[in-house]
Amino acid sequence: MARGRLHAVILAGGAGERFWPASRQKRPKPFLRVVDGRSLLEATHSRARRFASRDSVWVVCGTEHARAVRRVTGLPAARVLVEPRRRNTAMAVAFAAQHIAAHDPEGVVAILPADHRIPDTKAFADAIRRAARAARAEGALVTLGVTPTRIETGYGYIQVGEAVGRAHPGLRRVRRFVEKPSPARARRYAKQGGFLWNAGIFVFRARSILAEVERCAPELHRALGPLRDSPRARTGQAVERAYRRAPSLPIDVAVMERSRTVWTLPVSFHWSDVGTWLSLAEELGVSPGGTKVLGGDLLFDDRGGNLVWGDRRAVALLGVEGLAVIDTPDVLLVTKLERSPAVRTVVVELKKRGRTDVT
Amino acid sequence: MARGRLHAVILAGGAGERFWPASRQKRPKPFLRVVDGRSLLEATHSRARRFASRDSVWVVCGTEHARAVRRVTGLPAARVLVEPRRRNTAMAVAFAAQHIAAHDPEGVVAILPADHRIPDTKAFADAIRRAARAARAEGALVTLGVTPTRIETGYGYIQVGEAVGRAHPGLRRVRRFVEKPSPARARRYAKQGGFLWNAGIFVFRARSILAEVERCAPELHRALGPLRDSPRARTGQAVERAYRRAPSLPIDVAVMERSRTVWTLPVSFHWSDVGTWLSLAEELGVSPGGTKVLGGDLLFDDRGGNLVWGDRRAVALLGVEGLAVIDTPDVLLVTKLERSPAVRTVVVELKKRGRTDVT
Repeated sequence: MARGRLHAVILAGGAGERFWPASRQKRPKPFLRVVDGRSLLEATHSRARRFASRDSVWVVCGTEHARAVRRVTGLPAARVLVEPRRRNTAMAVAFAAQHIAAHDPEGVVAILPADHRIPDTKAFADAIRRAARAARAEGALVTLGVTPTRIETGYGYIQVGEAVGRAHPGLRRVRRFVEKPSPARARRYAKQGGFLWNAGIFVFRARSILAEVERCAPELHRALGPLRDSPRARTGQAVERAYRRAPSLPIDVAVMERSRTVWTLPVSFHWSDVGTWLSLAEELGVSPGGTKVLGGDLLFDDRGGNLVWGDRRAVALLGVEGLAVIDTPDVLLVTKLERSPAVRTVVVELKKRGRTDVT
Repeated sequence: MARGRLHAVILAGGAGERFWPASRQKRPKPFLRVVDGRSLLEATHSRARRFASRDSVWVVCGTEHARAVRRVTGLPAARVLVEPRRRNTAMAVAFAAQHIAAHDPEGVVAILPADHRIPDTKAFADAIRRAARAARAEGALVTLGVTPTRIETGYGYIQVGEAVGRAHPGLRRVRRFVEKPSPARARRYAKQGGFLWNAGIFVFRARSILAEVERCAPELHRALGPLRDSPRARTGQAVERAYRRAPSLPIDVAVMERSRTVWTLPVSFHWSDVGTWLSLAEELGVSPGGTKVLGGDLLFDDRGGNLVWGDRRAVALLGVEGLAVIDTPDVLLVTKLERSPAVRTVVVELKKRGRTDVT
């Protein structure tokens, strides 16, 4: 097996709350066929294969999804890293980095959330390769920064700093990460320029990120102890012990925002995290008068501007616009598209009530 | 069998278009359990039994509903008058009157639409009896006029004339019938007084209405020829021939509006024709903030003011108000309550497209 390869690590650990009721605990968002006729995980897997060889693609996922991940991606069990409990992305990334470092100490890792949409896979793979060159040569943690195309309050932003130098054209230092902004602030970013969307796509050497975990996130570093002792463990006691102690933090917060070696590669291909029914509607081109139908049989719709996620049932809409109608075999959701990002609160409320049957 | 009895004729011939998709061609509105936990037909049947003896209750319905009518009401086949095709209420009433006159020439008939809601059955039966006394003694066609409780554009109105005399206290002559008014006109009626809602509930001697059919609706009279020749026919050739020639007209238009012997009995009990999802919502007390659920499991509803007709599916509403969500096993309707009276146009459109599977 070649060493110092470029690996793809697909993070498929989501809870499936924001696409409820289509997504459920048992079938989270990466498994939904929301766009392009295939699941987001399938699409992410083929994107990964544009730059990573067959034996360099990995998926991190929860126990309950491991079987489905293997079915969808065709990956062998050895490259599906199963998390015994959910501990957010910092732990998922560290687990994968530790494991890959044990097999390929010089390996470079690209972290790909399983639930994004990036239609231009070639531009994407080119960007990852450029980021990987910088990561390999300079030990940088590189994050892709998407050039904003609208005023958007649903994403975090990256403020870019100076160019890193002639050896890596296009790459910039990161001045700071900023959380999802207010509308006023988002408008300011758009006017001012120099702000990119933080896509949550990172490229680094496995050993670089582990070193930065040690420096920036000591609690996480300690939790990884059992994995350092059994570096090839993929399941079992060592993994269980590590996860039991791991803090639940996003990798952005735990490491990227604190590290001094973070660079960004500005990219301008179309990217969406398809995060809510609203953003899916935008992604599909729902517009005043234009309804989009994902499955099912739309019998009637006199207003338009709706998003219909159909099941076997036929659907008729009369006098309504700007709605998402999400029809699943056991649960029906009707929501204003603009309010749909709050669907997470519905799921949280239902879980609180013990309604595991519908969450 | 006593003669000159008071008969109840329940008209159950509706097309089920306005409660679509809960009501269908095969299961029209009288068979739906929309209020009070039983079907409107069941409720109408028990209302009829308050003033009519067991062997004086009749139902007129379409071929496809005869079996269900007998199951719901327990009536023998001999008192279910089956229409071989739909020809609106004038023909249904004439058919029943002809048939009843053959059995009971002095019989008085009360015409009851099968799909109204009248909770106070005692007040209702008292009114029918009073109307029947006038109909029997004077040969009048008596229509119940409901005292309006709001400005309403969904009903036809009756303008009342002078009192008919001391022999029949409360009964008034009808000055004219008026079609569903504009909002401005409805407001004027409310201000001016002297207007009642035309409830479509009529009381007359069977022979009186047949005589008025002859005078006011000669085409209908001619169509009845085969039934006059075979007055006890309930099915078969004579009925088929009569229906083939019968014009399709409401009894109001064909006879009541043209007759000179029409009286009205003003009543003030609660009455609703539960004609649309909107009027059902009002009937059930849907209000801003207050959602009503007919079946199904409402998981979440942050705004309220909705009407949910549930099936086995659980329903969640987020950020929506003033909607009707009508969920049936094969068709889902989402409509603004205020637009729901237009659901008929959806059904008409679907029938035009040949979608008998969903109508």
